[in-house]
Amino acid sequence: MIAALAGGVGAARMLRGLSGAVPPSEICAVVNTGDDLVLHGLHLSPDLDTVVYTLASAVNPDTGWGIAGESWRVMEALDRYRGQTWFRLGDLDLATHLYRTQRLGEGATLSQVAAEIAGAWGVRVQLLPVSDDPVRTIVTAEGLGDIAFQDYFVARRHDVTVTAVRFEGADQARPAPGVLDALGQADTIVICPSNPIVSIGPVLAVPGVADAVRSRRDRVVAVSPIVGGRALKGPADRLMRELGHDASVVGVARLYAELAATLVVDVADADLAPAVEDVGVRCVVAPSVMVSDEAAVTLARTVLAAR
Amino acid sequence: MIAALAGGVGAARMLRGLSGAVPPSEICAVVNTGDDLVLHGLHLSPDLDTVVYTLASAVNPDTGWGIAGESWRVMEALDRYRGQTWFRLGDLDLATHLYRTQRLGEGATLSQVAAEIAGAWGVRVQLLPVSDDPVRTIVTAEGLGDIAFQDYFVARRHDVTVTAVRFEGADQARPAPGVLDALGQADTIVICPSNPIVSIGPVLAVPGVADAVRSRRDRVVAVSPIVGGRALKGPADRLMRELGHDASVVGVARLYAELAATLVVDVADADLAPAVEDVGVRCVVAPSVMVSDEAAVTLARTVLAAR
Repeated sequence: MIAALAGGVGAARMLRGLSGAVPPSEICAVVNTGDDLVLHGLHLSPDLDTVVYTLASAVNPDTGWGIAGESWRVMEALDRYRGQTWFRLGDLDLATHLYRTQRLGEGATLSQVAAEIAGAWGVRVQLLPVSDDPVRTIVTAEGLGDIAFQDYFVARRHDVTVTAVRFEGADQARPAPGVLDALGQADTIVICPSNPIVSIGPVLAVPGVADAVRSRRDRVVAVSPIVGGRALKGPADRLMRELGHDASVVGVARLYAELAATLVVDVADADLAPAVEDVGVRCVVAPSVMVSDEAAVTLARTVLAAR
Repeated sequence: MIAALAGGVGAARMLRGLSGAVPPSEICAVVNTGDDLVLHGLHLSPDLDTVVYTLASAVNPDTGWGIAGESWRVMEALDRYRGQTWFRLGDLDLATHLYRTQRLGEGATLSQVAAEIAGAWGVRVQLLPVSDDPVRTIVTAEGLGDIAFQDYFVARRHDVTVTAVRFEGADQARPAPGVLDALGQADTIVICPSNPIVSIGPVLAVPGVADAVRSRRDRVVAVSPIVGGRALKGPADRLMRELGHDASVVGVARLYAELAATLVVDVADADLAPAVEDVGVRCVVAPSVMVSDEAAVTLARTVLAAR
């Protein structure tokens, strides 16, 4: 069994690759919920949805999130009210939020609903939100103070200087049912190429998760989301720098050194492999940019072989 | 100034007629909220929305509710989850519910949001929910026990035998700001041709409203929703019978006798005019079926002249 710590787009592609390398039902993804938000009264779980849509081959290939063939009738109608349209919710995607919110209102847990949604899309990878309890990523931004993650990420297009990140509620949150078992039983634990600070960070902040990973360090393979000193997507590089980390595979290795025995870095960073190993993390160099499903499967095989 | 007690479709047409007879800004509608419900986490106010869409000339002319040119992308997508699709929410209509729910979540009152929504549609009639506090119509149905109004009305297409109706929360509810003032100051109070039991009933159940109407009985004109012994729309006739009332204009007159000095009945019920007057209610006979805007304006003029 493979367990994976997952954020959004990068993790979704990694999981798609892993699904091509081993039977999907043998994969359990523990997914970030720090990006979750309530908007229009609806419970949005962006990372869970990105993973589902990607694994279901339904994701918008241009963005890496959202649904292919999406339409925007509701948002266009919302413009009349000058409503909150900064977080654009497509019509097809909205159905997921309506369903999730209805079920949560009926008393279902987030992990129950995640399983139902994945099942409805025919996704056989087990998807677990890291916690059924609320964990909210809060970003402290220069001149703005504390702002919610999606305010930082979407509304402000992460174009602010971040001085701190914290995970509200994480200390009170319990791992969702199955999370610790999956981490305890996995042959390999993959830390997907997601933002270490704001995607993997909230997952590790839930009490018990980091310990569970750390205790199996030899089986943990991380994939660097930083390639050639830059994030493939999103603000990971800038965020790492602003929070005092080296925005490089070496910086990633330092962040994960206690958790992961192995780090997979892209061939672009081959020269940094000795510096990664100096941190005490075995470095595997391989093409890590998942430009296609084939590339993702190849990377997945490399990751599984690296353990 | 004209005040009107309003339910959904019939009231919306009456208000449209009144808007053609006097300046819209001189009309204040006190609208039923007993049909409101939370679905998918969204706050739905069906009667308020029907009135807005109708006054904005945006209503679906085939149904009398919903928005013309509506699409159903979200509901179609919700089918995947076998979600709650019994209450079909169109894409354009959903925007209204998202906006309302977001604003309520921000701390706005239902009446504030109603004003914002009406304003966004260019509606100049003042629309007041009868209360900002929750009032919920509960129907006791044979063999089913207590069910929520929309379960009765939409899910079961009112094809059940009703033994009782009550308005949960009404005794604790306060009239929304402006409701009692409007009723106290109106030159004429119109009781729109809505279901007396489940549309006008909840409005009257909010403490203070019935008293305010009763104290101005001479200025109150009701329009019968029953024509020729049948409801023009919906289950008013059956419901009146099942609850022990006469499903006729005479039954309507008895229900409103303490509140309204005058009842307008359709020409089809001309022969019942003496029986209405026997109840102590002045009876005005006029064409009351609003088959067109012109017919609605003509009826409105009759109503205003009848006072």
